[in-house]
Amino acid sequence: MAIGRSKVVVVGTGSVGAAVSFHIVMNHICDDLILIDINKEKAWAEATDLQHSLGYSGNRMHVKAGDYSDCEDADLIVIAAALPYIKGQTRLDMIEKASGIMKSIVPPIMESGFSGIFVIITNPVDVMSLYVHKLSGLPASKIIGTGTALDSARLKYHLADVMKVDPQSVHALCMGEHGDSQIIPWSQVTVGGKKFLDILKDNKTRLKEFDINVLSEDIKMIAYRIVNAKGATTFGIAATTVQIIKAVLKDENKVIPISAMLNGEYGEKNIYVGVPAVLNNQGIQELVEYHLTDMEIKELKKSIDIIRQYSKKLIF
Amino acid sequence: MAIGRSKVVVVGTGSVGAAVSFHIVMNHICDDLILIDINKEKAWAEATDLQHSLGYSGNRMHVKAGDYSDCEDADLIVIAAALPYIKGQTRLDMIEKASGIMKSIVPPIMESGFSGIFVIITNPVDVMSLYVHKLSGLPASKIIGTGTALDSARLKYHLADVMKVDPQSVHALCMGEHGDSQIIPWSQVTVGGKKFLDILKDNKTRLKEFDINVLSEDIKMIAYRIVNAKGATTFGIAATTVQIIKAVLKDENKVIPISAMLNGEYGEKNIYVGVPAVLNNQGIQELVEYHLTDMEIKELKKSIDIIRQYSKKLIF
Amino acid sequence: MAIGRSKVVVVGTGSVGAAVSFHIVMNHICDDLILIDINKEKAWAEATDLQHSLGYSGNRMHVKAGDYSDCEDADLIVIAAALPYIKGQTRLDMIEKASGIMKSIVPPIMESGFSGIFVIITNPVDVMSLYVHKLSGLPASKIIGTGTALDSARLKYHLADVMKVDPQSVHALCMGEHGDSQIIPWSQVTVGGKKFLDILKDNKTRLKEFDINVLSEDIKMIAYRIVNAKGATTFGIAATTVQIIKAVLKDENKVIPISAMLNGEYGEKNIYVGVPAVLNNQGIQELVEYHLTDMEIKELKKSIDIIRQYSKKLIF
Amino acid sequence: MAIGRSKVVVVGTGSVGAAVSFHIVMNHICDDLILIDINKEKAWAEATDLQHSLGYSGNRMHVKAGDYSDCEDADLIVIAAALPYIKGQTRLDMIEKASGIMKSIVPPIMESGFSGIFVIITNPVDVMSLYVHKLSGLPASKIIGTGTALDSARLKYHLADVMKVDPQSVHALCMGEHGDSQIIPWSQVTVGGKKFLDILKDNKTRLKEFDINVLSEDIKMIAYRIVNAKGATTFGIAATTVQIIKAVLKDENKVIPISAMLNGEYGEKNIYVGVPAVLNNQGIQELVEYHLTDMEIKELKKSIDIIRQYSKKLIF
Repeated sequence: MAIGRSKVVVVGTGSVGAAVSFHIVMNHICDDLILIDINKEKAWAEATDLQHSLGYSGNRMHVKAGDYSDCEDADLIVIAAALPYIKGQTRLDMIEKASGIMKSIVPPIMESGFSGIFVIITNPVDVMSLYVHKLSGLPASKIIGTGTALDSARLKYHLADVMKVDPQSVHALCMGEHGDSQIIPWSQVTVGGKKFLDILKDNKTRLKEFDINVLSEDIKMIAYRIVNAKGATTFGIAATTVQIIKAVLKDENKVIPISAMLNGEYGEKNIYVGVPAVLNNQGIQELVEYHLTDMEIKELKKSIDIIRQYSKKLIF
Repeated sequence: MAIGRSKVVVVGTGSVGAAVSFHIVMNHICDDLILIDINKEKAWAEATDLQHSLGYSGNRMHVKAGDYSDCEDADLIVIAAALPYIKGQTRLDMIEKASGIMKSIVPPIMESGFSGIFVIITNPVDVMSLYVHKLSGLPASKIIGTGTALDSARLKYHLADVMKVDPQSVHALCMGEHGDSQIIPWSQVTVGGKKFLDILKDNKTRLKEFDINVLSEDIKMIAYRIVNAKGATTFGIAATTVQIIKAVLKDENKVIPISAMLNGEYGEKNIYVGVPAVLNNQGIQELVEYHLTDMEIKELKKSIDIIRQYSKKLIF
Repeated sequence: MAIGRSKVVVVGTGSVGAAVSFHIVMNHICDDLILIDINKEKAWAEATDLQHSLGYSGNRMHVKAGDYSDCEDADLIVIAAALPYIKGQTRLDMIEKASGIMKSIVPPIMESGFSGIFVIITNPVDVMSLYVHKLSGLPASKIIGTGTALDSARLKYHLADVMKVDPQSVHALCMGEHGDSQIIPWSQVTVGGKKFLDILKDNKTRLKEFDINVLSEDIKMIAYRIVNAKGATTFGIAATTVQIIKAVLKDENKVIPISAMLNGEYGEKNIYVGVPAVLNNQGIQELVEYHLTDMEIKELKKSIDIIRQYSKKLIF
Repeated sequence: MAIGRSKVVVVGTGSVGAAVSFHIVMNHICDDLILIDINKEKAWAEATDLQHSLGYSGNRMHVKAGDYSDCEDADLIVIAAALPYIKGQTRLDMIEKASGIMKSIVPPIMESGFSGIFVIITNPVDVMSLYVHKLSGLPASKIIGTGTALDSARLKYHLADVMKVDPQSVHALCMGEHGDSQIIPWSQVTVGGKKFLDILKDNKTRLKEFDINVLSEDIKMIAYRIVNAKGATTFGIAATTVQIIKAVLKDENKVIPISAMLNGEYGEKNIYVGVPAVLNNQGIQELVEYHLTDMEIKELKKSIDIIRQYSKKLIF
């Protein structure tokens, strides 16, 4: 008898994949961690550096560089591979390159016999999640895109800061595209369990500096500002991804907004979109469909249309 | 009444300073974290990215970019600033550059009124720790160099791997210079509390592949191999540094090998060297002086001589 | 300079006080923990047993039995003292005994010079919290009754179980008296951020077994069933109390339903009642006032009236 | 595919079993926890109280009362069942009663199909561990007695306190019987990696109050003093037991002194005795045999003889 171990593979050890891996190791999220990169020396160096980070720890977590044959018995694979952003490239250029990467990664993973959960970080993440679903042949419930989870983390952090509460006392999320067309369904936002729209009404003086539209815009733009200054966003996406991984591996049934395949929600189907979902060790257990306002539904559908247009560019 | 908060400043937000900061945030090591960098945009971007990593957390840890005026009431300052390694530069070139950095950092910190603990990562770390002690005017107990703590982490990890136990069941350490002249005092190494030299005698068959000299050499060389492949070592040093920070902030009185000022131990004085020390919220509480073998003492003194020669190159 | 330590005193080392203390120690919630009991041998034995629980740990948390002089520099005092429930005793008998206990505890604490936060567990908790406020002369923001926090924990657990999500994905709470007249404001309950009343509408088949009134009744009655079978409830209240302690000591600004002094909310004043509140190292930072339905307000006011009647029985 | 869950059963929900369970739940040591007691109402009440302790948590750990059929797929079973100590009873009376309890518990567990790891707490633990090994028919590596792990925790705590370091910086242990004949092998004790006997020599002034024999005696007697004052020792044994459970479930390969079957070590066989062992998800991976002094070996063998005499009283 061997007591169940949990095994995670991270494909792509750039700054995001490395940060995800470091967080996994520092918080002992799984028992076995395998790093795969086309640059094998890079994967080896990250794995070895991570091993050294365990030198004062009280566990024997296994970390090593590997290859696709290590995917067979993995419980979860994170795809963090990406080409660096090149100034001036269009969204369509980006899709072409990213889908090329997926085509080089997903088939050898499936050939290993992998039957676990995929967590996709590579952008445009909604489109790439759909693509991995198609390429892998796995049920949609097993492909989770990080989607608007990171945007939601930013929103939660900033609202918590404005309201002076901890982020877990804020329920707030972004929906739709992980991109410019995303929406914030303010009708669903609560702080300390109180409707945020009621809070705005009840605290006109205290919140007179606060502007919903400014915050919405800030949430969208902040990634660009961070990328300009440090070349990439890494820690926010790493923490967000580890939340998702933990919900899956520990079978938490936690509700997190991620990119999932719609199946009738808001009248939409066959498209990956950022929506709240219950995550457990089956992947996406179910979606949570809110009663949005008419305006929110209209904007959400507009965002979905944009994802759908881009998804059509995928070549199989 | 305000319940005691703990405040850490990280100076230098390159890959090491950023990894230290991420680990601090993911494990809530302190309440306030301030990032300082000559590139203010970089410090802002790292701090903001770290804030986003808190979006799903249940705490209101404060992270922000700051400047030297934020050091006044800091409990602990990590100096992680460094110039990138340039091929072909000598150790003396390195000392000159690193001491230039210290001279630009330490005086404005002291002018803020800072009276806490310094943790120095910048290489050559033994020499730079002495330099910060002199520049700051603080008692030697308040300046901790990371010294051979990272080498020791590597040694513990690899011995744990060979012996198939967890790293905390291994007592092993490197002493002397954080550099090529460091020594491993094998007479003091135990695994599961058993003398390692006895283990070697009792397990000749099982450990026939194991060679003490090969491992010692590997521990010294592995940093170079990692740097070649990923440009820097980051996660090992970050985890090691956070161990030290935790021991100080949480007043743990934990024994960790770090670079400390000798005061008669092994007949040496006025020099920073990697030795085991008890760390608590006073900084270095006391040193642990082992009964080494004559050969180990001889090699340790040789390593100390090398640090002393380099320390003489410091210009005040 | 000494880096801020946090100090907690637990008064009353019966099964609840002991369970609170064990949880504090196992999760390193504070740096110094003092146990006080009229039975000094009992306090010594619990403290010593707790010390032994630290034998494999990596910290030097200080736990010891003490007396009221140890309260002077405490950050937070938990009052867990209680007389055992005697069958047939009325609520008024209970108030008389409990207030006698408070009168023997609070004055010597205040004489020590204590100026921190009180967390009151002793029942009837709403009445006793008011009493400690009066006896201590401290501002109401510094006296926190555990109130309906435990009832809310039970509600969250059971709703999470019904909905198959983790408890943090459920926002639900009990308000009013920690007792039979408490109310559940269903208009404010959400699961995964979705209004629970909408969930009931949308999932008639799936939730056809679920009955709001049965659950409300179960939440009230379950404490009696546990007390009958094991003599007391200990772990639920301990975990709930530690949530509150952590929110205070770590300055979390977390929103938790606790017993707090109303100051105009729902048109009520000068009475301790279970309501959601923002907790940080100032104690109760502010109350969160919901937009309840008329029916909910009516029932809440009825519950408040009951607390008020009992509070009148207090003798000063 | 279902990602590996870990399942623990605690048999006996007296004060020790309940404290073990609370610690398991507060630190999420496993995914499924089942409580079994001959008093089914008690088991139900403890399980329900533990469920409520999860109300503010972010996981969906499953806790419930169960019966022996739940043991089939358990990874680890803790036997904490015990009759209360009756004044004046002899060690032989105790063996008779305890073995009666084992005979009522172990056969139905084995009939369920259980093939995991047993952790035995019931005293006299060395004798009972042997008995469970015989009754269960499982390999000796799968039966772990808590043995001198708790005595060692006490020793580590007190030495750490004397030396003003954290307990993990102390390597110290008790060996032999979990009882009056146990020994402390001082030749193996280190603090901060330094031989304790060298420390005594080097710090005659500082440690002039310290007496090895007094400490040894205190370690043996402290349990009696705690039992007199609070009726049982609970938190120390709970924390120690959870250390062992974690080492097994997380496959830590941690070295802990526990009661294990000797197989030639110190010239002894077929007897359960407190010795350091490597614990992982196979149970006892291997024993660590120290090079003790002649005097220590002599005393250890005397202690083993005592266990052997009592073990002969077992009736099969």
